[in-house]
Amino acid sequence: MLKPDYDLLPALSGEDTTKDFFQELVNILLSYVCKSFRRSSKVLDFHHPHQLREGLEGFSLELPDQPENLEQLLVDCRDTLKYGVKTGHPRFFNQLSSGLDVIGLAGEWLTSTANTNMFTYEVSPVFILMEEVLLRKMQEIVGWSEEEGDGVFCPGGTMSNLYSVLLARYHFFPEVKTKGMTALPRLILFTSAHSHYSVKKSAAVLGIGSENVVVVKCNDRGKMIPAELESSIITAKDQGCVPFYVNATAGTTVYGAFDPLNAIADICESHGLWLHVDAAWGGGLLMSNLHRVKLQGIERAWSVTWNPHKMMGAPLQCSAILVKKRGLLKDCNQMCAEYLFQTDKHYDTSYDTGDKTIQCGRHVDVFKLWLMWKAKGSEGFGSQVNKCLENAEHLFDKLNQRPDFELVFKSKPEHSNVCFWYIPPSLRNMPPGPERNRRLHEVAPKIKAKMMEQGMAMIGYQPLGDKVNFFRCVFSNPATQTEDVDYLLEEIASLGHDICIRIETDL
Amino acid sequence: MLKPDYDLLPALSGEDTTKDFFQELVNILLSYVCKSFRRSSKVLDFHHPHQLREGLEGFSLELPDQPENLEQLLVDCRDTLKYGVKTGHPRFFNQLSSGLDVIGLAGEWLTSTANTNMFTYEVSPVFILMEEVLLRKMQEIVGWSEEEGDGVFCPGGTMSNLYSVLLARYHFFPEVKTKGMTALPRLILFTSAHSHYSVKKSAAVLGIGSENVVVVKCNDRGKMIPAELESSIITAKDQGCVPFYVNATAGTTVYGAFDPLNAIADICESHGLWLHVDAAWGGGLLMSNLHRVKLQGIERAWSVTWNPHKMMGAPLQCSAILVKKRGLLKDCNQMCAEYLFQTDKHYDTSYDTGDKTIQCGRHVDVFKLWLMWKAKGSEGFGSQVNKCLENAEHLFDKLNQRPDFELVFKSKPEHSNVCFWYIPPSLRNMPPGPERNRRLHEVAPKIKAKMMEQGMAMIGYQPLGDKVNFFRCVFSNPATQTEDVDYLLEEIASLGHDICIRIETDL
Repeated sequence: MLKPDYDLLPALSGEDTTKDFFQELVNILLSYVCKSFRRSSKVLDFHHPHQLREGLEGFSLELPDQPENLEQLLVDCRDTLKYGVKTGHPRFFNQLSSGLDVIGLAGEWLTSTANTNMFTYEVSPVFILMEEVLLRKMQEIVGWSEEEGDGVFCPGGTMSNLYSVLLARYHFFPEVKTKGMTALPRLILFTSAHSHYSVKKSAAVLGIGSENVVVVKCNDRGKMIPAELESSIITAKDQGCVPFYVNATAGTTVYGAFDPLNAIADICESHGLWLHVDAAWGGGLLMSNLHRVKLQGIERAWSVTWNPHKMMGAPLQCSAILVKKRGLLKDCNQMCAEYLFQTDKHYDTSYDTGDKTIQCGRHVDVFKLWLMWKAKGSEGFGSQVNKCLENAEHLFDKLNQRPDFELVFKSKPEHSNVCFWYIPPSLRNMPPGPERNRRLHEVAPKIKAKMMEQGMAMIGYQPLGDKVNFFRCVFSNPATQTEDVDYLLEEIASLGHDICIRIETDL
Repeated sequence: MLKPDYDLLPALSGEDTTKDFFQELVNILLSYVCKSFRRSSKVLDFHHPHQLREGLEGFSLELPDQPENLEQLLVDCRDTLKYGVKTGHPRFFNQLSSGLDVIGLAGEWLTSTANTNMFTYEVSPVFILMEEVLLRKMQEIVGWSEEEGDGVFCPGGTMSNLYSVLLARYHFFPEVKTKGMTALPRLILFTSAHSHYSVKKSAAVLGIGSENVVVVKCNDRGKMIPAELESSIITAKDQGCVPFYVNATAGTTVYGAFDPLNAIADICESHGLWLHVDAAWGGGLLMSNLHRVKLQGIERAWSVTWNPHKMMGAPLQCSAILVKKRGLLKDCNQMCAEYLFQTDKHYDTSYDTGDKTIQCGRHVDVFKLWLMWKAKGSEGFGSQVNKCLENAEHLFDKLNQRPDFELVFKSKPEHSNVCFWYIPPSLRNMPPGPERNRRLHEVAPKIKAKMMEQGMAMIGYQPLGDKVNFFRCVFSNPATQTEDVDYLLEEIASLGHDICIRIETDL
């Protein structure tokens, strides 16, 4: 019964025990990885919070005063994976981030072994340079010239979007850094009704206020209507407010819609506003020669959010904020802490990039992406994106052919999002109206609950605007094949049929 | 010459190739881990940015269009580690975060294999519950009652401190979330001259403005002077401003000083101000029965930052913001995005904690800490802290005995920070004054540059207030022994002697 602190490194002669322990751990982890890709294995083994809290089959979450032994720790590791969710499973459709890229995983293992911090070159020489190389490449793909472009990797797309608002505010009102918002006029931001909630969240955090985010109307397809944007800007100006920032979305969260970037860029130019493009989800399409046309105009953005942990399949987290104007990140955020960013170091301290960020310590999120890029090449990412969009088109075609499903919008998907309702038999001939909506609204949550209990697939749902609860299927996992898409539809139809029959009988 | 995308999972029959690839990777990683603990190995193999940029011995950072083969990827992994810094080495004294806890590392490997997101219970059931258990335990250790306490793990101590300011502002002025700072009076924050720069950074980001952070004077030992705090508060009020928040530091970055928490809490109570305790660095001492007395009064804080990735040795990143008032995090940050936080789910959605945060997706930072806690028990963390502080005392004693070193402050270290100058022979008999200071200021950077080139140890330096550049040694790595402390002193003395002789000769 070995105790970790006495037997593992740094204990003297701890090398062998450490290696043996890791060998057993690696067996557990790799067997989980292999299982994640097998269609015969479940996506999840669902338990309610109180069940897990009480301890299942001896799996106790409580923290002890005394050390446990190595065997118990390995059992805990096995249990942790057992009761979790296999986000890499080909039938996990629940999130924009899915899949388990094994090279990305290898990158994460190395990153955690290196266990260092992105703030200075002296402790992260290689990773700092990899970040520079990756950011430059992404800027080039966005279409910025060699003289333009700066950026930083940060903890998620919401943070990247927050950076964009922070930078825009500083660009127009640099005094905000020292004097705060009370020195400024009432600022107004614009974003579409279908955009991500992080724009409002950023306004709340930054002290601008969520009410100062004007929500611009979208068309049926979820795209911002440029004329609506323009009239909103004029209205805000007429009210004595100061518009300064527009967020356009390239790949909305639910519909996967692309805002018309060029038309929006024209409006931003004529009013002198900062154009941010939230391509957290859609950015991956830039890697595909077939699909990058959907982001035409992105090169006119002043800043871009792009999450390789979504469509490019990098492990969580991996999100970049790209900024066109060089030096702005540093001017906006630097505080010149002398204990960290000494100016009398013996190397080129422009590589101490930590002072450009709103963090101090920063996790290394770049290595996994760098290694994946080496493993796939730019072209490999392109094929991966194409495949995901083919799956979406396959699902769209199938749905079009079935009487028991209804599409939320009739046009072909632009991204890999496909939105649809399952229509139970009793609703198929019911005329549209509040009663049908009321009943349809309950269908998706019921099917999802049952699906999670059975554990063979996972998909998300939500209401949106005047649309009651519908399923949103998204594809970002290259392991998913058309057979998995077919399986999902059959699963929904069969669960839906059962549940609805039961409800009818109960009535 | 295997190509990753054709041969690894999810490729059909990719299981064996995947396992073989990981086996080779694990050999590389474990050999690095073992080397990190060996005193005969170098801490780093320094190269300037332009040297790494140009490619060393075939190590190219450039991103290809076409895939590389698996052998090349393994070579890249080896090179990445080779040119990095061994932050787990017993002679790496450069950062508050050091060491390589192998159980923590195992936790990170599992975390990245699980590759999921902390926003909802449905995709992170086990990790969400582990976060709850850890936060509850930490709140209990801080000294809050069972009815109090909330919190969240977030990407680093600067973010945790930003949360504290955000929450304090919302607590007093909830309208700020929707209306922004323009609806508010001029708010003032207080923090000590020795506190971390993140308080000013937070004020800048949140739109309060860095000039509205009042820097309170410290005594010689780097502790905030309560009378100075009180008079600053009164002055601010007299000027028509609204004080609302005080940051007290438990373990300052450079001196490792503890602010007098009870005295500060008294002042906050009498003026009705939010008391935050930044225990990012000092929080670990709460685990030690010997040293937790230094944080007396922390239970009176309204919020606490505590970074287990510092003194408790958890891998990067692992930082918690603890909040006394339950529900505040949610009220302040929630945006109720319906695609993620549906209220008609079939489980208890109070476990969908993502809406409490300022992020959307959030990295799993809890598992490594949970596993380490199982491996060490609370008592194991206590012993680890005690050992680090014994090393600091050993260094302090040694410095006291030597004529070639001078302590920055004469009293025994409270935390594991020890601050000192190396005094070259030519300065030993020079009277204090500007000329001596000018020359002394150049000593530490020169020694550090030479030390990094030789690569056998790493230590930080900085100026502070009227003190010219001095070394700050910190201990958070349980692998460090007193022999390493002795080695460091000899190394500094020998490099310092050589350098100074050379300078004298040049003159």
